[in-house]
Amino acid sequence: MLGGIEAGGTKCVVAVADDDLSISAQATIPTTEPDETFASIINFFERAQSEHASDLTAIGVASFGPVGVDPAASNYGEIFETPKLAWRGVSYQDRLSQVGVPVIIDTDVNGAALAEQIYGAGKSAETLAYVTVGTGIGVGLVKAGKPLSGFSHYEMGHILPRRAESDTFEGLCPSHGDCLEGLAAGPAIEARWGQPLSDLNSDHPAHDIEADYLGQLVHSITLTHAPHSIVLGGGVMKTEGLIERIRAKAERHLGGYMKHAALDAGLQNYVTKPKLGDKSGIIGALALARACNADE
Amino acid sequence: MLGGIEAGGTKCVVAVADDDLSISAQATIPTTEPDETFASIINFFERAQSEHASDLTAIGVASFGPVGVDPAASNYGEIFETPKLAWRGVSYQDRLSQVGVPVIIDTDVNGAALAEQIYGAGKSAETLAYVTVGTGIGVGLVKAGKPLSGFSHYEMGHILPRRAESDTFEGLCPSHGDCLEGLAAGPAIEARWGQPLSDLNSDHPAHDIEADYLGQLVHSITLTHAPHSIVLGGGVMKTEGLIERIRAKAERHLGGYMKHAALDAGLQNYVTKPKLGDKSGIIGALALARACNADE
Repeated sequence: MLGGIEAGGTKCVVAVADDDLSISAQATIPTTEPDETFASIINFFERAQSEHASDLTAIGVASFGPVGVDPAASNYGEIFETPKLAWRGVSYQDRLSQVGVPVIIDTDVNGAALAEQIYGAGKSAETLAYVTVGTGIGVGLVKAGKPLSGFSHYEMGHILPRRAESDTFEGLCPSHGDCLEGLAAGPAIEARWGQPLSDLNSDHPAHDIEADYLGQLVHSITLTHAPHSIVLGGGVMKTEGLIERIRAKAERHLGGYMKHAALDAGLQNYVTKPKLGDKSGIIGALALARACNADE
Repeated sequence: MLGGIEAGGTKCVVAVADDDLSISAQATIPTTEPDETFASIINFFERAQSEHASDLTAIGVASFGPVGVDPAASNYGEIFETPKLAWRGVSYQDRLSQVGVPVIIDTDVNGAALAEQIYGAGKSAETLAYVTVGTGIGVGLVKAGKPLSGFSHYEMGHILPRRAESDTFEGLCPSHGDCLEGLAAGPAIEARWGQPLSDLNSDHPAHDIEADYLGQLVHSITLTHAPHSIVLGGGVMKTEGLIERIRAKAERHLGGYMKHAALDAGLQNYVTKPKLGDKSGIIGALALARACNADE
């Protein structure tokens, strides 16, 4: 039996599943203080093991970041400089050690990318990018069933887009001001216009500005990783009409320079919404646990 | 005996070497018409085999691009839309088939990245990026001895940097106008100022503009690939003082957000010149041939 934790800033989704990633029990636990949250998580896994009369073989964690994702590093599974002060320095490895099974950690977006590659939009995509646009902007990448990383997970949410013509907003990122996340994540939209994008009329300039920035992200992902598929998820992407505007902007930037069957005219097949919807995260966490078993 | 071809727009460097990549014969052949150039290349390899009384086991090609780098695709080893019209559609596999050994093809920058990882700046760098700034701008990436790619090799030279404050130059890229290559490759510098960067006084604004754009590239590579080392090569990088300016700009953009031992204060160890100098290309080609043997 596999365990999975999708750890977010406000809630953790926990689940157990069989080797086909079919979920037999799932719960949502608020992300409060680490002691309290981990007690609830461990309690969930203990009950699930006894109710299913089955032992866990591994736990996969798809976590908010920044988080240590290098299994060879001493800080593997440690949460770094999050604004959630009580969670700084918290280690999933340490906190989950009493369960007594291997714990594999990656980012929430790498987990979601893995889930989408296995089940969703990217079934035939050897390399797939998963983007979330919500309280932050994150990008995960998988190639042939393995999350990609360098000395750390990627931080593509902080690239510097060209400023949209009519946009003078100073940006909200504490580290970079007007990087992509500072200009185009949910909080930036609300700070600029006083309401979420989905509440603004379709002819409001906010839609074009948002599509401009996210179109530049799609362009940048294509040039830097040439993935076979780009999946756009997260709360902001639920705005009606947004993905169509992003495709148009991205296609204009690409200018026909890169050619491949994956890059269809109009990008309808290349840039898609998550097929697993909000399930990408927890299924990704379970898939990380399964990949861990396969490695042993 | 390994064969290597570093294929550039004006000349091809060819060499043979042993399994330690120690070169025993090398020649430079002008890149003219494909028939003529390949006849000279094949002639070089035939003479080398007879002179060394040794058979080639594989040929590695580090080529100008765009070029097909996916061994599973039907266009593997084919040159795509180059401005060198006679070379469009030319296939290294076809042209070198009479030598009768496996031919492995990658980009010139992926080859150089591989060479620098094996011998040079990136000895301890599991993931390494090699940038060339010359007649174009290209970026190669290797991880643990393997070149990285998605549906094609990457095209990071065409990212869209923010415009430097005082720069109104329209850009030279036929596909994107003022993308990075259009703004910061050698021909853009000469079109803007009438002379190469290295001929302009160190207080000329051209130096700061160039460093601004290349600093954004270093920033973008770090966010999108988190490599352990970034090597900056090519003709423009021979300009005195340029790498120091680039480090300063890149460090300011990074804003301390990503933390890792590889990212030293000042980036002196992180952003370096090629340790192999102009030899990176041909040694990379030979290393591709060696990697091909190891795969079999």
